[in-house]
Amino acid sequence: MFNKQYVMKINKIDNSRLNKIDPNDSPFGANISDHMLICDYENGKWGEPVIMPYGSMNYSPALMALHYGQAIFEGMKAYKDKNNEVFLFRPEKNFERFNESAKRLAMPQVPKEIFIDGLYALIDLDRDWIPTKPGISLYIRPVMFASEEMFSARISNKYTFAIMTSPAGNYYDKPLKIKIEDYYTRAVDGGVGFTKCAGNYGASFYPTFLANKEGFDQVIWTDSKNHAYFEESGTMNVMVRIGNTIFTPPTSTTILSGITRDSLINLAKYHNLDVKEERISVDNIVNAYQEGNLKEIFGCGTAVVISRYSHLGYKDTLMELPQLPDEESYAVFLKKQLVGIQTNEIDDPFGWRYKI
Amino acid sequence: MFNKQYVMKINKIDNSRLNKIDPNDSPFGANISDHMLICDYENGKWGEPVIMPYGSMNYSPALMALHYGQAIFEGMKAYKDKNNEVFLFRPEKNFERFNESAKRLAMPQVPKEIFIDGLYALIDLDRDWIPTKPGISLYIRPVMFASEEMFSARISNKYTFAIMTSPAGNYYDKPLKIKIEDYYTRAVDGGVGFTKCAGNYGASFYPTFLANKEGFDQVIWTDSKNHAYFEESGTMNVMVRIGNTIFTPPTSTTILSGITRDSLINLAKYHNLDVKEERISVDNIVNAYQEGNLKEIFGCGTAVVISRYSHLGYKDTLMELPQLPDEESYAVFLKKQLVGIQTNEIDDPFGWRYKI
Repeated sequence: MFNKQYVMKINKIDNSRLNKIDPNDSPFGANISDHMLICDYENGKWGEPVIMPYGSMNYSPALMALHYGQAIFEGMKAYKDKNNEVFLFRPEKNFERFNESAKRLAMPQVPKEIFIDGLYALIDLDRDWIPTKPGISLYIRPVMFASEEMFSARISNKYTFAIMTSPAGNYYDKPLKIKIEDYYTRAVDGGVGFTKCAGNYGASFYPTFLANKEGFDQVIWTDSKNHAYFEESGTMNVMVRIGNTIFTPPTSTTILSGITRDSLINLAKYHNLDVKEERISVDNIVNAYQEGNLKEIFGCGTAVVISRYSHLGYKDTLMELPQLPDEESYAVFLKKQLVGIQTNEIDDPFGWRYKI
Repeated sequence: MFNKQYVMKINKIDNSRLNKIDPNDSPFGANISDHMLICDYENGKWGEPVIMPYGSMNYSPALMALHYGQAIFEGMKAYKDKNNEVFLFRPEKNFERFNESAKRLAMPQVPKEIFIDGLYALIDLDRDWIPTKPGISLYIRPVMFASEEMFSARISNKYTFAIMTSPAGNYYDKPLKIKIEDYYTRAVDGGVGFTKCAGNYGASFYPTFLANKEGFDQVIWTDSKNHAYFEESGTMNVMVRIGNTIFTPPTSTTILSGITRDSLINLAKYHNLDVKEERISVDNIVNAYQEGNLKEIFGCGTAVVISRYSHLGYKDTLMELPQLPDEESYAVFLKKQLVGIQTNEIDDPFGWRYKI
């Protein structure tokens, strides 16, 4: 996949910050690794990508991304196995999705030799930042934003593409109380819900804050028309187990095409679990709960892997989900399979793992 | 309105860039004035606002606004009259709307003594940047964005509030060809369409780009459910004259509460023009066109003031609007009244003009 002939310009740091930071004991996303990749786009073409010490750039507050929101990102991880070998997981999927986001935000496509080769070179250089403790990995953040500086609500002529990394524990570790959102909307047909653009996240914070005040950890987003169908859960895709079938909404222009989502679907099928990509109505969920068939609900995404839910709030009702023992939980089983492949502990029949 | 006791810290530039830039001949938003106001928020409180030379700040590409889109702005103008007196137009409206945007984006409220007093001090200091040529003014850009640097999709703990200014000609000057958008969506109930958040703009660029490729200058956004009703036009509010009545959609969670819009409604009423805040259906527009009653359509906003439309595209039909002579056009009349008040050429019965 990588173009080994591509020569990346690298300006190394003088002193690693690893003498002050323990990657195995670092809050998610808080400590950014020694180096970053930077590549600028101007006059219709990309310049030379450069790996340089992570730090400040010379942006003014007129930076167009801060005014007009042309800003997209990806979330990926690098893993170390017991022998300190380093692996990426399905990086071409993030590359493809990044450029799909770019298209919808009227931003330029990033070439593979910048995104993928740059990623390879950066992870290779900062491999000492990759945690070794089980369940912990190196979070990778490719980002692109409009970098022209002026005031005019139009497509920017300049962009910066960057890749940064940061040691990452899991996001959530306890089962979550979730509210089914019935007023606020995350995404709409013809909008940008399927992209990882910055605006999607900021727009979700206030409704989430309100749910937090009511005692919930996150919200389940529902469709914009009638708030009758599940779409996503917080910043994750959502999966529901009714009886012994896993349901997850099909991807659309309002639902992110999650790579963890896709991997779990494939893993479930591989292990002969029944999985259906179908719309999930709130009514069906309530019925299944009342009939005792609602077994598990969980969110899935790169940052969290899988997050199990304990309670589901809908209007004035609070539904308490059964707490299945680990050996009966599909969520626990699938997470173990996925993390096992990611960290080279079990075979990878899919060809998802890529050694650096 | 201004608190004259408030002492603003000012670090002046050594040499003005006005020796290289002519404010009367400067593309919209391209040349940013000598000074900017900066105020940082951290640990739950605002620091001291400082006016300093416009220029770069020390942001890294991990700046949270670039990833999670907590970024809002306002657009305002300062005007000079024939005697070089300087005026603002309804600045308290922008201040109020800014904080409404902030609330929906889960950002802190900016206090009046920072926003309004800061604005006053900045405009006063850079008054030589205000163009004197008729139709030209100084564009003012208050902006606030998340300024913490880390990767975690949550509400930022740090923010920067800034005000910058730039000499500004009018955005558009020829009548525009407009496409009624029937697939892409700008805003949805329960979303952020009523705010001036960065994400709204970036999401609109690609649909606009597609309309441009079809030969249109802008799009008219329609409702998310059925694309049957007018909402906004590009980055402007929209007004339609059928017979001798002006229609404009009522504001809602999907429509920006435009200050130019509100001013034009008040001016129309003051001058005994018939103006109705009612939903405008595409069907009604097409019928009025076929019956010869569709007289004018125009967009309105701070940047453009009023922009007249010449053609309206809907699916496969192109409707050519009548080109009324200036003396019969409500758009021309209302623009003249509004700009007259803004530039102190005619009386201001509303108390909208504020002398600095």
